Amino acid sequence: MDVSKRAFNFCAGPAALPEAVLQRAQAELLDWQGKGLSVMEMSHRSEEYTSIAEKAEQDLRDLMEIPSDYKVLFLQGGASQQFAEIPLNLLPEDGVADYVDTGIWSKKSIEEASRYGNINVAASAKAYDYFAIPGQNDWQLSKDAAYLHYASNETIGGLQFDWVPELGDVPLVADMSSDILSRPIDVSKFGLIYAGAQKNIGPSGLVVTIVREDLLGRARSVCPTMLNYKVAADNGSMYNTPATFSWYLSGLVFEWLKEQGGVAAMERINRAKKDLLYSAIDTSDFYSNPIAHNARSWMNVPFRLADEKLDKPFLVGADARGLLNLKGHRSVGGMRASIYNAVGLDAVEALVAYMAEFEKEHG
Amino acid sequence: MDVSKRAFNFCAGPAALPEAVLQRAQAELLDWQGKGLSVMEMSHRSEEYTSIAEKAEQDLRDLMEIPSDYKVLFLQGGASQQFAEIPLNLLPEDGVADYVDTGIWSKKSIEEASRYGNINVAASAKAYDYFAIPGQNDWQLSKDAAYLHYASNETIGGLQFDWVPELGDVPLVADMSSDILSRPIDVSKFGLIYAGAQKNIGPSGLVVTIVREDLLGRARSVCPTMLNYKVAADNGSMYNTPATFSWYLSGLVFEWLKEQGGVAAMERINRAKKDLLYSAIDTSDFYSNPIAHNARSWMNVPFRLADEKLDKPFLVGADARGLLNLKGHRSVGGMRASIYNAVGLDAVEALVAYMAEFEKEHG
Repeated sequence: MDVSKRAFNFCAGPAALPEAVLQRAQAELLDWQGKGLSVMEMSHRSEEYTSIAEKAEQDLRDLMEIPSDYKVLFLQGGASQQFAEIPLNLLPEDGVADYVDTGIWSKKSIEEASRYGNINVAASAKAYDYFAIPGQNDWQLSKDAAYLHYASNETIGGLQFDWVPELGDVPLVADMSSDILSRPIDVSKFGLIYAGAQKNIGPSGLVVTIVREDLLGRARSVCPTMLNYKVAADNGSMYNTPATFSWYLSGLVFEWLKEQGGVAAMERINRAKKDLLYSAIDTSDFYSNPIAHNARSWMNVPFRLADEKLDKPFLVGADARGLLNLKGHRSVGGMRASIYNAVGLDAVEALVAYMAEFEKEHG
Repeated sequence: MDVSKRAFNFCAGPAALPEAVLQRAQAELLDWQGKGLSVMEMSHRSEEYTSIAEKAEQDLRDLMEIPSDYKVLFLQGGASQQFAEIPLNLLPEDGVADYVDTGIWSKKSIEEASRYGNINVAASAKAYDYFAIPGQNDWQLSKDAAYLHYASNETIGGLQFDWVPELGDVPLVADMSSDILSRPIDVSKFGLIYAGAQKNIGPSGLVVTIVREDLLGRARSVCPTMLNYKVAADNGSMYNTPATFSWYLSGLVFEWLKEQGGVAAMERINRAKKDLLYSAIDTSDFYSNPIAHNARSWMNVPFRLADEKLDKPFLVGADARGLLNLKGHRSVGGMRASIYNAVGLDAVEALVAYMAEFEKEHG
């Protein structure tokens, strides 16, 4: 690989960012818009930074068509911190919350929430070896749940909901860390959506939480002030100094997404990308993906080679062609191609070409 | 001001970063060491990122001579989140902790800790209108305190300890957000030191906590997993995805500090800077700073003009000369020059020259 060239990066996260975004960040890294200082060096309360922060929020609102009765919070600690923040803010001490288990991240959210109250696992994909998602008819819902939590996409297993649960008045809480902004969703169906930034939004160290206003103000007395959604909302996510550079860079990604045609355009491109890759897997006897077709992730595509002794040569050859970070998660093995918004169709074409070449040689 | 020129930035935080650090980050923003991807796009578990993270920690250990029985944690949520993490990790439910109040940040830490148990305010600078720090002889210490907490430098008031409390076996916990790395300290005197990055370390969104190992493993059952120091320590600050870019950039700052001659060199430069600025204030009837000389901050220098009607013209003239962010905190008024490590002697010279010029014109 030509070292001066950008690689195709299939990392599950922190993941590829749009090259145009990095170029812009690079150009203004020492001097933002002639102000003589970096965005990293600005007071978060300055006029300049306020304009950056507000534009980022507005662009995200535009992209996702977020209704005006939802707050958009730019927080820290990643999705893992949200696993505690959600029950600390939404689950009364004597209440119950429903959780759906579709993989490793769901399980982590269940484990953390269980430390704060009564958690009912309403459904688990375990019955299908995590290769399919139980339909809502089979869910064992609680009466009067404070909320239902699910992960719309499991980054490690490669399992994604292609439908939104319908729960009437029970607030729906979704971990969208790895599929936010990848295709349109109806935000009004949700009570709360959260997403660690480092897949489809921006750099790690930022988590975006979108919460319906009526769910604010219920935090437990033991909830740390920094983890209280209402405090964050009342202070425009600036109760203390936020992760200013990550917020700015996420704003550049939102601008880039708008230039590309928004989330509808992303859906078209992402559909083409996943169709190309799954088709390459399905038309071959050498590669395989075990997930039920209607639950296959558009963002994270795990696949196996016919012989796992070939995993290493496959990865070495991929690296040599600038196809990086294809190794599957240690808990799953095999390969995984994460094809988030910033990974173009050209990257998937290069991957599929390499897969065919490798199969011809070793198949 | 020539817009292509870097300004002198006296912001209290997020604050100035060394220009050489920003240049290096800029040069490798799209392609780190020929790997074809940005540091922001790397898996935190990759070989490349691991080398970045480990080098940053080792450089910080070298700079501060951190003993081997201390863990260095790269966390999120800023000092404000530490205000809760400290009692959640170190204060037993039936225990008591001593706090010293020397200003706004101390008070915030006391307020948050009081939500988790019995807090004794052992001393307060209120008796001196926050212009001086009560000597340890006047402190009302608890018997068997779980720890004593103080802020070594108050960013807003401009009040800094020039001594370290001596408490025998009671662990000393210090908020060093705004003076870490500015001069040598003896880490072994402390149980825990923490510092939000955005003053003397790196970009906001990162907080560094240095904790003696024997203090780990005492977290309350209600402590969120992400706020548990032992979990962070056991996972090398990677229980989940850390703020990778902020950690990397902090590492570049640590490298730069070593190149400058380390913390001892910083102490010499910082002494020269604060001597120059306080001397300009003290030798004038036009400017004033009310803090007792032995408690004056080396990092944050608040000062007033003889007539506050001149504040605005002073700031306008400063801006026009590229001397930015000199406005004092709204709770204090007047001016404040934050002169952290990355603000050079040349910046202070330019400020002092402007102050003299302004006084001549308006004094």
